[in-house]
Amino acid sequence: MDYINIIGLIAGAMGGISLFPQVLKVVKNKSTKDISREMFLLLAGSIFLWLVYGILLNNLPIIIANFFGLIQALIILFYKIENQLRKRAKERVYGPLKIS
Amino acid sequence: MDYINIIGLIAGAMGGISLFPQVLKVVKNKSTKDISREMFLLLAGSIFLWLVYGILLNNLPIIIANFFGLIQALIILFYKIENQLRKRAKERVYGPLKIS
Repeated sequence: MDYINIIGLIAGAMGGISLFPQVLKVVKNKSTKDISREMFLLLAGSIFLWLVYGILLNNLPIIIANFFGLIQALIILFYKIENQLRKRAKERVYGPLKIS
Repeated sequence: MDYINIIGLIAGAMGGISLFPQVLKVVKNKSTKDISREMFLLLAGSIFLWLVYGILLNNLPIIIANFFGLIQALIILFYKIENQLRKRAKERVYGPLKIS
């Protein structure tokens, strides 16, 4: 394998694990106020399409990196959306709040 | 171009613009408490290597998507690290604080 492909593999591996610290932070603190829901919707959509791309090309590194990336993005999105739904439910009772 | 490459192009374009809503949120609110610095360090590193990969392969779509992605990741990191430095400076004066 030439050095260009090695750079691509390292880039892919770094990207694949990059969401993990954010998952840990969200699971630990439960707070998602500063996180953009739209960012993680776009990111999850992009990772899903890369996963489809990898499956169609039968390229195992692309499949593995994006499979784990997608799970991580969905965990972050789950916490974000859950917090927003919880905030809205509280606002129906207490009026506008500053958390999400 | 076959449909597999089109899926890859859409995935790349979605990934390239995915950080933009987070940049807007950070610039607007200045708050970065819930954002993981390690996530954006890994992501910026990954995007930088994809940029190098694109330059070495002379692949313009990869270069463009990752050039703009890198700028966005660095803006988010800049706000995060600036907030952390500001927090540390305040803590030297006032003791432990809960912001970052």
